[in-house]
Amino acid sequence: MDIFTGTTVGTSWRRAVISVDQFSRGDINEIFDLADRLANGRTTPLGGKIIANVFYEPSTRTSSSFFSAMTRLGGSVIPINEVNYSSVTKGESLEDTIRTLENYCDLVVLRHFENDATERAMEVSKIPIINAGNGSGEHPTQALLDLYTIKKEHGGVDDLTISLMGDLKFGRTVHSLTKLLRMYDCRLQFVAPNQLAMPAEYIWPADKIYQDLNEVIDSSDVLYVTRVQKERMQGSEDFDFSYAVTTHHMKKAKNDMVLMHPLPRVGEIATELDSDPRAAYFRQMKYGLHVRMALLYAMIGNV
Amino acid sequence: MDIFTGTTVGTSWRRAVISVDQFSRGDINEIFDLADRLANGRTTPLGGKIIANVFYEPSTRTSSSFFSAMTRLGGSVIPINEVNYSSVTKGESLEDTIRTLENYCDLVVLRHFENDATERAMEVSKIPIINAGNGSGEHPTQALLDLYTIKKEHGGVDDLTISLMGDLKFGRTVHSLTKLLRMYDCRLQFVAPNQLAMPAEYIWPADKIYQDLNEVIDSSDVLYVTRVQKERMQGSEDFDFSYAVTTHHMKKAKNDMVLMHPLPRVGEIATELDSDPRAAYFRQMKYGLHVRMALLYAMIGNV
Amino acid sequence: MDIFTGTTVGTSWRRAVISVDQFSRGDINEIFDLADRLANGRTTPLGGKIIANVFYEPSTRTSSSFFSAMTRLGGSVIPINEVNYSSVTKGESLEDTIRTLENYCDLVVLRHFENDATERAMEVSKIPIINAGNGSGEHPTQALLDLYTIKKEHGGVDDLTISLMGDLKFGRTVHSLTKLLRMYDCRLQFVAPNQLAMPAEYIWPADKIYQDLNEVIDSSDVLYVTRVQKERMQGSEDFDFSYAVTTHHMKKAKNDMVLMHPLPRVGEIATELDSDPRAAYFRQMKYGLHVRMALLYAMIGNV
Repeated sequence: MDIFTGTTVGTSWRRAVISVDQFSRGDINEIFDLADRLANGRTTPLGGKIIANVFYEPSTRTSSSFFSAMTRLGGSVIPINEVNYSSVTKGESLEDTIRTLENYCDLVVLRHFENDATERAMEVSKIPIINAGNGSGEHPTQALLDLYTIKKEHGGVDDLTISLMGDLKFGRTVHSLTKLLRMYDCRLQFVAPNQLAMPAEYIWPADKIYQDLNEVIDSSDVLYVTRVQKERMQGSEDFDFSYAVTTHHMKKAKNDMVLMHPLPRVGEIATELDSDPRAAYFRQMKYGLHVRMALLYAMIGNV
Repeated sequence: MDIFTGTTVGTSWRRAVISVDQFSRGDINEIFDLADRLANGRTTPLGGKIIANVFYEPSTRTSSSFFSAMTRLGGSVIPINEVNYSSVTKGESLEDTIRTLENYCDLVVLRHFENDATERAMEVSKIPIINAGNGSGEHPTQALLDLYTIKKEHGGVDDLTISLMGDLKFGRTVHSLTKLLRMYDCRLQFVAPNQLAMPAEYIWPADKIYQDLNEVIDSSDVLYVTRVQKERMQGSEDFDFSYAVTTHHMKKAKNDMVLMHPLPRVGEIATELDSDPRAAYFRQMKYGLHVRMALLYAMIGNV
Repeated sequence: MDIFTGTTVGTSWRRAVISVDQFSRGDINEIFDLADRLANGRTTPLGGKIIANVFYEPSTRTSSSFFSAMTRLGGSVIPINEVNYSSVTKGESLEDTIRTLENYCDLVVLRHFENDATERAMEVSKIPIINAGNGSGEHPTQALLDLYTIKKEHGGVDDLTISLMGDLKFGRTVHSLTKLLRMYDCRLQFVAPNQLAMPAEYIWPADKIYQDLNEVIDSSDVLYVTRVQKERMQGSEDFDFSYAVTTHHMKKAKNDMVLMHPLPRVGEIATELDSDPRAAYFRQMKYGLHVRMALLYAMIGNV
């Protein structure tokens, strides 16, 4: 995961959003302030601008979010979702695809199955790139929107107890979010079965490790649940995943606990919780729209 | 087909267009007046608005029609045609997809393979939904545009003799149109082989039933032909479909008969009839654009 | 390839761009002047207009180029890339698809796998059509952008020595470009293995034929390299393609030689040449955008 750090620390996120490692607390404040402002505005500052949504792996959620963010800012989107049966199948390299697209648009949003894709794209590109998920690597805009959700729901991040539960081993979402949370004075609790435990490099001494939701449900200000991505578990044996959140757990949770999930969910959170005001996972999508509007505006809006 | 009626009668079509059962004659007049006005206008009253075209089953015709309708009104469209290989394949429910999309857009146009899809979407959605075809259920905007076509071509619907021919058993189009026509004082004639006969619940005592186009061709003011949807006929045996309309029939038809077809056609109407001024099936597409513009404007245009 | 000539010579390219045979030198000057002007402008003369990008064969590059061209002029694009699993699979003819789309948009950009597709579309269409590649036939907008690239890079075409190398037998790109170059006073050199030699009908007596890049590299003002399209070579045996351009060749080339390629490339030009200022293949993409803007504007912009 850290193979990027060397390069990305030296790269301005305004040129290419590759990793959460690029963002200082000041950067984040700036982006979130911008998100607040754009959420309420009715301006179209990106009128005449074009982005390309280049998805080598399908993701309706993420591509629709960027599509909507760009459109709400007055810009246009070239949807390239069918990469699997396009030029690429004629053997074109990612680099050549990017150098072609830079003639047609002002920014590329890139979802790719290889971990080094965004960096390779950035190396050759004259226009800004946003990493919208690179293999098992990072998904930095997801981590930013997760952090923004916590800030909006709780008014801040410091002093919170934040529990992350589910697939902590393969889930790029929780890895990136964990990195961001290290900039704040909050307590982290990891809940996962052994097979899916958080890798050692992400664990700090003060963190607490659990295997049972019941041990953390009453102390958590935020409970962040992730999907068990079976497609990432090739080779590991199936297991009985009993980490689903139910009304039973919510009764023991704090009144202002914030329940989050990056979606899609496949049973980790019972649908009967959807009407609980603490269920923030659909609001999370709205916050995500605003964060992506802020990033697009900061990167190509001539702020 | 009527499993929806209970719910839909109580639901305003401005909130969700689910079934033709929702429309009164007054509603229809209002929509058609709006269609007339928008067809000629050059205004863009939906500037800044976004709809999502969510097609679980492909339909270039219907999705393009909504795309164009929204664009002509100044709005934008998120095209989600590739649902088959998107989040859904990760196991996401329709409800979660809708609750995600409601954060990204102002209205969802939904084509789905299950009959209860639109209602399930409506149950959870904060934004309006339009049913663009739900399994073997309804396709209400098609029925509205069919009715609009008859009105535009003949100046009205009352007193007309309208013949419906083809697959009357599985064709959701003719079922919905038949329901709408019941609000008018017109005569209905059904022409189909036994295997594809109109289901009993759609037949009124005054209707006439035929098996041969030659018996109705000279008395019809409208001849509405539908495609035999082989994909809906699983299990039934093949048959010799001799219900194609030819120049031979058109010679016996009235001079102002209107020949309609929802398209695509696969031989039900000979292409040599395309230049006959009575062939209205391509004009039908244009009328459809105007009806969909009217619906979109009425639903999200703050009329 | 010349089956179109009869019809197309008589068809204005403003109504349908089918073949390079339709363009006079005066037409080309007009289009290129328009491209120059639109490239620098910030006007949106096609606001409110809609085109449909109808691709029966995938081509991210070409469809994105038209998408961007239309968007930069203020218009909108209906992307119909998924033709393979749309209405067409229900058996609809190309003609019916076009007659439907003409109700939804102002112009159709058509990529099809059959050589007569554009002409068939034009026969029935009330709106302009642009051929974006028809089977093994033509790809006229590619040829125009290739010519425009030569003009922009060299200031003109007359008196240049232009070498075309690669798959000269199946490559529709080089066939169309060759036709256009015949209108100018330039020297043509063809470089290909026997299996992929330029067909006799495209060769003029003054042309020179080679089998080795080394024989032409020092005399060329333009070196136009094409991809070996293995999908077009069904039945022919594999061969060792040693026609790749390397730094070794570029050392012997003129200082102002222009190296072109329609892309995608699969090894014909080493990536180490990308930083050579003579490598024009990515600039070629930008010129293509401008030529397509000019065509769209000339065809539906009420010039």
